[in-house]
Amino acid sequence: MSRASEIYPRARVSLREVGLRDGLQLVKAFPSTAGKAEWIKRAHGAGVRHFEVGSFLPASRMPQFADLRELIGVIAGLEGARSAALALNERGADDAMASGVDEVVCVVSATEEHSQANMRRSRAAAIDLVRSTAEKAAGAPKRPLVMAAISMAFGCSIAGPVDPAEVVRLSEACLEAGADIVGIADTVGFCGPKQVEELCEDIGKLCGDTPYSVHLHDTRGMGIANAAAALNAGARILDGSIGGLGGCPFAPGATGNVVFEDLVYLCETMGFATGIDLEALFPVREILKTEMPDEPLYGALARAGLPATVTYRH
Amino acid sequence: MSRASEIYPRARVSLREVGLRDGLQLVKAFPSTAGKAEWIKRAHGAGVRHFEVGSFLPASRMPQFADLRELIGVIAGLEGARSAALALNERGADDAMASGVDEVVCVVSATEEHSQANMRRSRAAAIDLVRSTAEKAAGAPKRPLVMAAISMAFGCSIAGPVDPAEVVRLSEACLEAGADIVGIADTVGFCGPKQVEELCEDIGKLCGDTPYSVHLHDTRGMGIANAAAALNAGARILDGSIGGLGGCPFAPGATGNVVFEDLVYLCETMGFATGIDLEALFPVREILKTEMPDEPLYGALARAGLPATVTYRH
Repeated sequence: MSRASEIYPRARVSLREVGLRDGLQLVKAFPSTAGKAEWIKRAHGAGVRHFEVGSFLPASRMPQFADLRELIGVIAGLEGARSAALALNERGADDAMASGVDEVVCVVSATEEHSQANMRRSRAAAIDLVRSTAEKAAGAPKRPLVMAAISMAFGCSIAGPVDPAEVVRLSEACLEAGADIVGIADTVGFCGPKQVEELCEDIGKLCGDTPYSVHLHDTRGMGIANAAAALNAGARILDGSIGGLGGCPFAPGATGNVVFEDLVYLCETMGFATGIDLEALFPVREILKTEMPDEPLYGALARAGLPATVTYRH
Repeated sequence: MSRASEIYPRARVSLREVGLRDGLQLVKAFPSTAGKAEWIKRAHGAGVRHFEVGSFLPASRMPQFADLRELIGVIAGLEGARSAALALNERGADDAMASGVDEVVCVVSATEEHSQANMRRSRAAAIDLVRSTAEKAAGAPKRPLVMAAISMAFGCSIAGPVDPAEVVRLSEACLEAGADIVGIADTVGFCGPKQVEELCEDIGKLCGDTPYSVHLHDTRGMGIANAAAALNAGARILDGSIGGLGGCPFAPGATGNVVFEDLVYLCETMGFATGIDLEALFPVREILKTEMPDEPLYGALARAGLPATVTYRH
């Protein structure tokens, strides 16, 4: 059994809360470190186990992630909780190893155009970073999992359509470079469930017993439908953010990540136990509201509440 | 071929805009008749063909539907457009026949408890109304289609869980009573996609070549995922309302019907042509905003816009 399979067993669904990373990517006012810690602790209390909490970048560039190491420390103190953070260059990978983070995420753009425009490097250079990060991880005292996330995997905001075969090829290259796990991301919320199902099936064949993750945005309202399609196709790791925090750099005012609470509900209705107590999770939204009063929060479920007369668990 | 199959061919997806009926059920300020007519005409111009526009009830009880006959007249003047309205008693059915409406919708609660509480009658009495309405329709100069809609088909706000076999039994009784077509409704937005898929498969088996309709609410964020599941299971008629207009009587402040625009997007991404031009449909939201400035409108797609670099059509 691969290391990734031990951490993300295929027999259950694992939901990664990425609000503290992707959700904060575009916000103007950042939550306090104490607020973030409370967010993590309360969500952990509700059963959330996977937290993506920032990027290893200079605080001058991404001040919202200046307290990343403190949050990794908070998570390390919580039973069964795991931290994840992005490493976008060699320095970031070194910092990740020193931080004790549980999972390092390297990003590879699905298209050469996006890779150059967004990261000022080729996709080959991005895969080289996966390789060197995996080597660093293998030699690190606390060996973190290395995830290679393919951004724009379902369509690119610059290059347009993306050939699924190209995403499979890039994913394979990342696995060969030593990634423990690959992720596919609909970074700008372009796709529908049929496309998700097809690519997940292809990625599932590539990965075999090793799990893969799916990162979806609700930019065009397809987030939950796409998550259902991913689950139907065999995906067992899904990302979301509490309150759907986070927007889209290419569509000002648009909704962001899939709403975590709704994602929990979806999984449970489909018979996938998440280990998460929704009644305990809802109050975490209040922390976000207090810390970022100007950010819109989404989620139909939090407005409506759980059904009063039926159980939503299948 | 059944009459229903001629109007709703199985080879394509038909979307019913129910904002003028279900969307107005709970609103406080009603749009003007001129505003409603503009809503219909502009939506028709964008390719929408099916409009559910009210209930045949005394204007004293449902003043928002006082102009129902005028709207049926507006729709009659539009190429290929079809009107639908609810008939909830014998008087309503008589009025429907006299109105020239194209489709009469009779509602049967999935549970006896809800039938008694909501309609003050038994389910058997509701099926009797389906029968008498079908008889009236058969003798009417312009024979309308008769739809029997099973409300609370996926869970009841009063009785709780609903046995799918009971929904199939009620649907069968409605078809035997002369309904041209049955519909199944998640009236309070309880269910998830797995439940939708399973019930649709059962209803599909019952209906054979005759289409059936699926009416979904987005109360708990599952609307589009449930619509995708219905399509996957073979459903080809889906309801929605522009801007997701309409709430839930059992959850104040909750979202209402599935957002029609997002539903169009979903269908197109899945390869089901809807005949609807989203760019032309978006401006209809402005009419709703002008006519009902206090009503919240939903829909991620209208906020984000269509993808700039890819076609969403599969």
